[in-house]
Amino acid sequence: MENELRRDYFLDRFVIIAVGRAKRPNDYVHIGSVEADTGRGCFFCPGSENQTPPEISRLEEDGKWIMRVFPNKFPAVSPEDGPDTGIMMPAYGRHEVVVESPEHGKTVADLSIERIVSLLKVYSGRVEAMLADPKIEYVMVFKNHGRAAGASLAHTHTQIISLPVVPNLVREEVEAAGRYHQERGTCPLCDAWVKEMNGPRRVWEDDYAAVFTPYASRNPFESWIMPKRHIKALNELDADERKSLASGLKLVLSKLKAGLNDPPYNMYLHVSPGEDDLHMHFEVLPRLSTWAGFELGSGIIINTMAPETAAEFLREK
Amino acid sequence: MENELRRDYFLDRFVIIAVGRAKRPNDYVHIGSVEADTGRGCFFCPGSENQTPPEISRLEEDGKWIMRVFPNKFPAVSPEDGPDTGIMMPAYGRHEVVVESPEHGKTVADLSIERIVSLLKVYSGRVEAMLADPKIEYVMVFKNHGRAAGASLAHTHTQIISLPVVPNLVREEVEAAGRYHQERGTCPLCDAWVKEMNGPRRVWEDDYAAVFTPYASRNPFESWIMPKRHIKALNELDADERKSLASGLKLVLSKLKAGLNDPPYNMYLHVSPGEDDLHMHFEVLPRLSTWAGFELGSGIIINTMAPETAAEFLREK
Repeated sequence: MENELRRDYFLDRFVIIAVGRAKRPNDYVHIGSVEADTGRGCFFCPGSENQTPPEISRLEEDGKWIMRVFPNKFPAVSPEDGPDTGIMMPAYGRHEVVVESPEHGKTVADLSIERIVSLLKVYSGRVEAMLADPKIEYVMVFKNHGRAAGASLAHTHTQIISLPVVPNLVREEVEAAGRYHQERGTCPLCDAWVKEMNGPRRVWEDDYAAVFTPYASRNPFESWIMPKRHIKALNELDADERKSLASGLKLVLSKLKAGLNDPPYNMYLHVSPGEDDLHMHFEVLPRLSTWAGFELGSGIIINTMAPETAAEFLREK
Repeated sequence: MENELRRDYFLDRFVIIAVGRAKRPNDYVHIGSVEADTGRGCFFCPGSENQTPPEISRLEEDGKWIMRVFPNKFPAVSPEDGPDTGIMMPAYGRHEVVVESPEHGKTVADLSIERIVSLLKVYSGRVEAMLADPKIEYVMVFKNHGRAAGASLAHTHTQIISLPVVPNLVREEVEAAGRYHQERGTCPLCDAWVKEMNGPRRVWEDDYAAVFTPYASRNPFESWIMPKRHIKALNELDADERKSLASGLKLVLSKLKAGLNDPPYNMYLHVSPGEDDLHMHFEVLPRLSTWAGFELGSGIIINTMAPETAAEFLREK
């Protein structure tokens, strides 16, 4: 098998699957310095609620909170607006944090499917609230797990940032999906999951959701989780779909945690901006390799693990 | 000063300059575990020439080599070709290594300007040789310095990879420069250096080259080094321009090394592919921050250092 240059399903994005440098899945087991992280002094733990900015909302069970939402103390965007000069504008928007569990040391992989369903509802509620502001063009939901993935606090949390522009990577997907639709009359992501459920990159599916490692995976164990129905955003999910997506997310995150010793990863959600049309999906990017000068200068990512190998690993029980 | 959302000179690329999270330059001083790196067992040191793949070329001084070029032992691309299926093709090309100094522990920052001039000539020669293959569309010259920047070997070296496609980031620059030229009749990078030499992001210039921190810098201390004349590729540089570019490169890399304790960085060269028109330039990206879920999902980079602050630091003698 030679190294392959693979093009994404619909984006002008290439990866090199460098099987000549390939390792086995177990070579990627995360060797983290096991921090003596007791949670002492953690601002996100119960008892420290007064050390976060004022709470926006919470979910409770048995009189105690199980999830909390509040503004980020060090926001990347801010709610003061100002003039747009064409190449500069204030970084207008809101930056919020969702603490997904009161238990320090728990991760989303450890939550029950019902809790992850609740988390998806929390995401949806905050996204809707942020989109009510007419100056907002897009809301980015993302998660950093582990220091190498950019998490500065260990206690499990998601971040939500609203923006006055559609981010270029989302716009590229919308435009490429539009071209694909014009040429073939179908959605590239509807086509992708159907194809992948019948091939070597299938990880899991049920009636409502599909999980696979994408053909042009950028990172080892990259996984996409999406509803089968062509829907544009979180608020279009019905109860069955939410439960299936929660199951798919739990499956991927649990397998990464158990099989690769809790590796660092990023997760983010891509949805349709405004009236545009993009099949919503989650992308999980484990951070088990380093993008270097070639990747940063070319945009072509060298991946030393074939997604077929990654899917086989993720399918194993 | 508010956080700013800045658009690149000509690309649809946004950054958030998050001064609300800002640090001072000295907060970025690299805290590396000072490895006891004696060079013992290094394949790139003199005496181990027979452990690299067969040498392609060398520069000598006083009968000893001062630079060597040879194929990468673990290539990302390979010289066997095969059919192109539209979304998959063999990763055809050549992957070479330039060892820039025989001295283990030396970096490009430590080389004399004359040596860096020689290095630019070596780059140019290898790029021309690779482009002689009609199947090659682009040649990427890049450098990884330090483990966090993806360098797997400590001994200073550059990598050169030839590709059967134009990388998407280069194509985006070509297309955006074309649109800019159509609208204004000028080159965006000619305009950029002229503007920047008269403002707070100026780092250095002489008659032939300009160095600045770009307006929409993605990383702390990102620096661009370019010839003032609108030229497309290394083989168009005249002797004065080569010397000036070498001086600019040495200045940036020396200042990073001395001022920030030898931080990890990537450097790459963007040139015009084929008949296209792109003002050639080097980009240096220090790796002193981590791109996380927001960056990977949106393409918008949050940078906690304003390029004006970075330029001030780089200008200091």
